[in-house]
Amino acid sequence: MASSADVQRGLQDVVALESRLCFIDGKLGRLIYQGYDIRDLAERSTFEEVAYLLWYGKLPTGPELSDLTSRLGALRTLPPALAEMIDRFPADANPMDVLRCAVSALGLYEPAETQPGPHAISGALRLTATMPSILGQFHRRRKGLPPLKPRPDLSHAAYLIYALLDRVPTGPETRAMDVDLILHADHELNASTFAARVTASTLSDLYSAVTSAVGALKGPLHGGAAERVVDLLQVIRTPDRAAEVVHSKLVRHERIMGFGHRVYKVEDPRATILREWSRRLGEAKGDLHYYELLRKLEEVVHREKGLYPNVDLYSGSVYALFGIPTDLFTPIFAVSRVTGWTAHVLEEYEDLRLIRPMAKYVGTVDLPYVPIGQRT
Amino acid sequence: MASSADVQRGLQDVVALESRLCFIDGKLGRLIYQGYDIRDLAERSTFEEVAYLLWYGKLPTGPELSDLTSRLGALRTLPPALAEMIDRFPADANPMDVLRCAVSALGLYEPAETQPGPHAISGALRLTATMPSILGQFHRRRKGLPPLKPRPDLSHAAYLIYALLDRVPTGPETRAMDVDLILHADHELNASTFAARVTASTLSDLYSAVTSAVGALKGPLHGGAAERVVDLLQVIRTPDRAAEVVHSKLVRHERIMGFGHRVYKVEDPRATILREWSRRLGEAKGDLHYYELLRKLEEVVHREKGLYPNVDLYSGSVYALFGIPTDLFTPIFAVSRVTGWTAHVLEEYEDLRLIRPMAKYVGTVDLPYVPIGQRT
Repeated sequence: MASSADVQRGLQDVVALESRLCFIDGKLGRLIYQGYDIRDLAERSTFEEVAYLLWYGKLPTGPELSDLTSRLGALRTLPPALAEMIDRFPADANPMDVLRCAVSALGLYEPAETQPGPHAISGALRLTATMPSILGQFHRRRKGLPPLKPRPDLSHAAYLIYALLDRVPTGPETRAMDVDLILHADHELNASTFAARVTASTLSDLYSAVTSAVGALKGPLHGGAAERVVDLLQVIRTPDRAAEVVHSKLVRHERIMGFGHRVYKVEDPRATILREWSRRLGEAKGDLHYYELLRKLEEVVHREKGLYPNVDLYSGSVYALFGIPTDLFTPIFAVSRVTGWTAHVLEEYEDLRLIRPMAKYVGTVDLPYVPIGQRT
Repeated sequence: MASSADVQRGLQDVVALESRLCFIDGKLGRLIYQGYDIRDLAERSTFEEVAYLLWYGKLPTGPELSDLTSRLGALRTLPPALAEMIDRFPADANPMDVLRCAVSALGLYEPAETQPGPHAISGALRLTATMPSILGQFHRRRKGLPPLKPRPDLSHAAYLIYALLDRVPTGPETRAMDVDLILHADHELNASTFAARVTASTLSDLYSAVTSAVGALKGPLHGGAAERVVDLLQVIRTPDRAAEVVHSKLVRHERIMGFGHRVYKVEDPRATILREWSRRLGEAKGDLHYYELLRKLEEVVHREKGLYPNVDLYSGSVYALFGIPTDLFTPIFAVSRVTGWTAHVLEEYEDLRLIRPMAKYVGTVDLPYVPIGQRT
């Protein structure tokens, strides 16, 4: 039997598989998707190009990108039975529960892919294209509004904002959301991606795997962090109160979301980029309230705990500037990460190996079976 | 960066966590649930007692068992909105997709538990109680029949048969199914249970975790094996053709389902017990066709490959003797394993640690970003 020292709690530092999708250099604070530095991609690329890169392993040519973009646009309409189902979900449901149900139900109406190749990529496109439609329809439904007709002409980032807010965003707004989506597209074996790969490793289908991922992303220790950051900002209210609020949390041994990362030992490069976009979008909208609170919060947390910001610190401030309600922050994370989830599932199908670790048994053995009448 | 030798493919032999739920002694061929040998439990206990054992860590007294049994019975009625949803699912849907959707949707109507304790156990009871109702309703719906009213008076095993076949089973039938459910209730960190724990490790809720597990169980490398065994028996047809069919599969390097196990190096103790029940049920029904085919198949596979049967070899023959269609075999596995899934999720909440391994990056780095017009 394994000794206590052999238990790899949380699988921290365990290398579970080989992947060519994503490289996190935790010491140098670099993030690479399929060979390309996230800083180049965030500066020069679009979300659609990054999605292509993750699925096909190379950046698209002009015609390849046009093809992908028009396919994504055409796939935004939900199966009618799924649209009806969403209208019947309780109006007060958690949007992540809605997304999990809708992704699972999409699998009832699409072929169950379990092989790498063009059919599975079609499934990945379908999942990516429909997520903004699902969230938009549910968000409108809970406000008593009818569904919008999908807009195949908009980019993924612009369509997401359109689906949620019923307005076509400005150029700078679209670009801010586009960069946010690029930064969230993949992050190696984070818990939701790993849940997708564990599911796919049994040769279960793409929709089952992505459903598992949505369920895992829902947890506050994973996708829920950006939402909690904004909750915290609403408690802090003014920069001069940041130190006091942080202290009171530290005294109670509460975790401060948006800081630290199991892999990055320096600043998360995504935080560096999003900080800049939070400022730019704030300036464009004439509202730097959240940005200034976050700068102060960073300063206090670094001084008190030596922690660096992670991607979640600034993303909530971007969504909040659009007026998007906090319970949609984690679903927006999914709208981007679904590209990484599906790319990982495709990779799992190419190099399949059932993921099945062991547990160290810490219970008793050889208990004598006592008949029910004699038990106490 | 990790060397190739450091990659723990499939996490084989990696000890991911400590658990007091289940101990598999792969060398001696023993299986223990919370201290009790599976042979004692299969011989002397009921599925309800085993469910109690997994959730509460001890076998119930008489009053505790009565309480659990009546709670399970009372929880069999589906939320009306969920029952309506199931009636709208496509009649030709895969029942595992239906179960995944229904479990996910149940989470819309129940509190989202993320703490160990009585509320989460209530969620575990709700999930366990409703699974036969979900499957029964869908199976009847695809035959054009209206839902049955739940029967709170029946045991879990009897209710499962009732829900699927619209008849109250005989005593020996009920006991055969009861033993089958006991044997499938838990099995340490199999892929579906691990998917549930990965999901729960983000502090996501019980319904999300069980939804992940259903998705993982769907894969033919996991839950789908019993179904494939019966498919193979239909190819073999008569015992004298077993050797020929096995040879032709081995020549094509095809896997023969129902044999071998990553953990057991000897015969899976569940196979030993189920072999006996397959014979007993076959004798009671005057139909030993599958039993005799399986005995012959065992003999051939052991001679040719040195492999021992696992739990999946005989379970399909038990379900087939009831006249249950093969696409319901994996869902029946879920009807039992949901007790183990939920017990593991409760344990995860008690000793929470985000499950997040690493990947070895085998892609390129530092690719120069080429503008789209210059790509080939």
